[in-house]
Amino acid sequence: MDNNNMKNYIVEKAKLSKDAARALSSISTDLKNSALLAMADALLEKKDVIIKSNSLDIENGKNKGLSQALLDRLLLTEQRIIDMAEGLKQVASLPDPIGEVIKMWKRPNDLQIGQMRVPLGVIGIIYEARPNVTVDAAALCIKSGNAVILRGGSEAINSNKTIASIISEAAEKAGLPQGSIQLIEITDREAVNIMLKLNKFIDVLIPRGGAGLIQNVVNNASIPVIQTGVGNCHIYVDKDADLSMAEAIAINAKTQRPAVCNAMESLLIHKDVAEKFLPAVAKSLTSLGVELRVCNKGIDILNKESITENIKSASKEDWKIEFLDLILAVKIVDSLDEALDHIYKYGTKHSESIITNNYLTSQRFLKEVDAAAVYINASTRFTDGFEYGFGAEIGISTQKLHARGPMGLTQLTTIKNIAYGTGQIRK
Amino acid sequence: MDNNNMKNYIVEKAKLSKDAARALSSISTDLKNSALLAMADALLEKKDVIIKSNSLDIENGKNKGLSQALLDRLLLTEQRIIDMAEGLKQVASLPDPIGEVIKMWKRPNDLQIGQMRVPLGVIGIIYEARPNVTVDAAALCIKSGNAVILRGGSEAINSNKTIASIISEAAEKAGLPQGSIQLIEITDREAVNIMLKLNKFIDVLIPRGGAGLIQNVVNNASIPVIQTGVGNCHIYVDKDADLSMAEAIAINAKTQRPAVCNAMESLLIHKDVAEKFLPAVAKSLTSLGVELRVCNKGIDILNKESITENIKSASKEDWKIEFLDLILAVKIVDSLDEALDHIYKYGTKHSESIITNNYLTSQRFLKEVDAAAVYINASTRFTDGFEYGFGAEIGISTQKLHARGPMGLTQLTTIKNIAYGTGQIRK
Repeated sequence: MDNNNMKNYIVEKAKLSKDAARALSSISTDLKNSALLAMADALLEKKDVIIKSNSLDIENGKNKGLSQALLDRLLLTEQRIIDMAEGLKQVASLPDPIGEVIKMWKRPNDLQIGQMRVPLGVIGIIYEARPNVTVDAAALCIKSGNAVILRGGSEAINSNKTIASIISEAAEKAGLPQGSIQLIEITDREAVNIMLKLNKFIDVLIPRGGAGLIQNVVNNASIPVIQTGVGNCHIYVDKDADLSMAEAIAINAKTQRPAVCNAMESLLIHKDVAEKFLPAVAKSLTSLGVELRVCNKGIDILNKESITENIKSASKEDWKIEFLDLILAVKIVDSLDEALDHIYKYGTKHSESIITNNYLTSQRFLKEVDAAAVYINASTRFTDGFEYGFGAEIGISTQKLHARGPMGLTQLTTIKNIAYGTGQIRK
Repeated sequence: MDNNNMKNYIVEKAKLSKDAARALSSISTDLKNSALLAMADALLEKKDVIIKSNSLDIENGKNKGLSQALLDRLLLTEQRIIDMAEGLKQVASLPDPIGEVIKMWKRPNDLQIGQMRVPLGVIGIIYEARPNVTVDAAALCIKSGNAVILRGGSEAINSNKTIASIISEAAEKAGLPQGSIQLIEITDREAVNIMLKLNKFIDVLIPRGGAGLIQNVVNNASIPVIQTGVGNCHIYVDKDADLSMAEAIAINAKTQRPAVCNAMESLLIHKDVAEKFLPAVAKSLTSLGVELRVCNKGIDILNKESITENIKSASKEDWKIEFLDLILAVKIVDSLDEALDHIYKYGTKHSESIITNNYLTSQRFLKEVDAAAVYINASTRFTDGFEYGFGAEIGISTQKLHARGPMGLTQLTTIKNIAYGTGQIRK
């Protein structure tokens, strides 16, 4: 397809989305829920077709030499399809944010002004290998009254096509407007670049994937973007920390699921407790397969205790890296201020935690650290829509506009100011 | 200055802003307020210097042949300086949004999670001729704990330089961090283009000015933008309207201040009341100097009553125009649905109002119109931070992300998720 045809194809889809969004914005909660349940049923009914399409993607992926990890993300099994259907049912069971009046106040002229939650309109989701995003993202957008345009990666194109056609057909049959859920079936990169500029039709873009994908969207979109992303998360073990709590939290934050954005990547330890805490936590972590990249002071402490296995000297680069792996940078700091400065310098404003029993220290950390989520005496792994109790998650925003941290249904809405008057005019 | 030097100059300022923002984020409310009061005093003390600088701008403006309207916007009189100082004092008297915990909830694992209002960081304001924006924008940014980089238009450069140096010096003397308020003194357009890409240092851009300025920022910024702007506002007079209320509101919305974005630009009238209402409102409006651009059906009605002065036939273009002047497009519609379709097609999602005494009609309008502000039986002119009771306004957002409608201090903040734990780890 040449660029002109591609543009026409995408614009046509986007126009249809915009029309769908207008109708969707005032559709009843019952109808949205029954559509979600119908989508779940359709997935279960057609799981063989989905698995067949998916096997094409898996075969292509193997031929292209995709890594085992990527192939695993790509793979759809019967269980995973059941899980996707369960996800739809769960979203159906969540409260509908649309129409909620957040507050209402009366002005001296008796005008009643309020703020009502309404959908954003058309949401564009640009994502990579996991085909389950096709279902998850569509479910959250529909429940929050938005039309969705999905643009998945080339690796999952066959799975995505099949899934999108199954769920959009089921949604339409259930009574949702045509075009509520659409997939851009072009895997050419140019398709993304065209999407990024369609301000007339698309209200918001949410890129989900690696740093390259997100940077391309942020740098080139004229449509507003909600940035999700990089987490170079720290845990600071203060001199007044409960050290056994600190150890348990450090182990959890590093090893419970190392490949995710809210896992700890750097451990900062106050010098006053380093001699006691570092050897203990190093033994625990390395025995769980974690490689430590330690500052010079820390290396000295570990050497004294003859702890050397899986221990390396940290380079300056290590403070910056989101390892997403069983690797941890470790630094001894002289003070809370040094910890705050280090986090300010190297953090990505995602999730940061302090372990301390000192009240004033805890409050300074809470106040002064600028991040989507700041914890006292808890694991950074809690930055998650489900853990926050939102019942769902479309991503974790690391930007400051609109939404920050875990994004559930509410974060996919905006407000409209409403006013009940009795003839008020402005003087 | 060549582009390279210009870039260095702007990046240096932006770096300083970023450092200032870090300190500002945890400064006390008392200190911010005393700085605002000191800024007010300094303006009053140095009003002669300001007037002298301003007279240079006025002279240059006259030589350049600026319109009388633009020259009036540019002009600073003693009274206008007193007003700016009063504005600073008023912002000082408003409640500080920073540190407010909006909500806090407990998870089943006893983790207490909450959302705390925090500053956005560094706000870039790009604006045009009015030099008072320099003071207003700085005041709101400082009160909400943000550092501000101001980039005003070339017409007001002498006034802006003097004002910015007076207030930033006063702020620093009062104890605010250096660089809290900065002006980009380069009037070259390239300076704006450089600013638009400084994601590392600037968190948000707010363009204030004409459509050209705003479009340039939206299309070329990689930094998130809060779009303020165009208002093609409608009033729909329903068949069940109180017609004398409708007339009073139409007159207010069109004539009370026609050059602003929340003024009415199109009047839609239900056919059942058109023969009664249109002649009456046309007489009132034209007698106040308003030119009406009327659809064919409306022209027929007015002709029957021999009302022809200041009446023209509407062209299709007239439905799209934000006149910002004593001009009004008028259309007879067959139904609420036609009114809703018209507003959907031509509206700019700013402010829309219905005049009706029919309950169901009012609720459908409220629900189905997608705009920053939707009114029942009130003038569109109320879309304003002061009228909403925010005590201040930095603009009216016409976009859907982050803030929608009048933006006061709260809209210049974001949230940070905070969590109080007692050793929680994720299972």
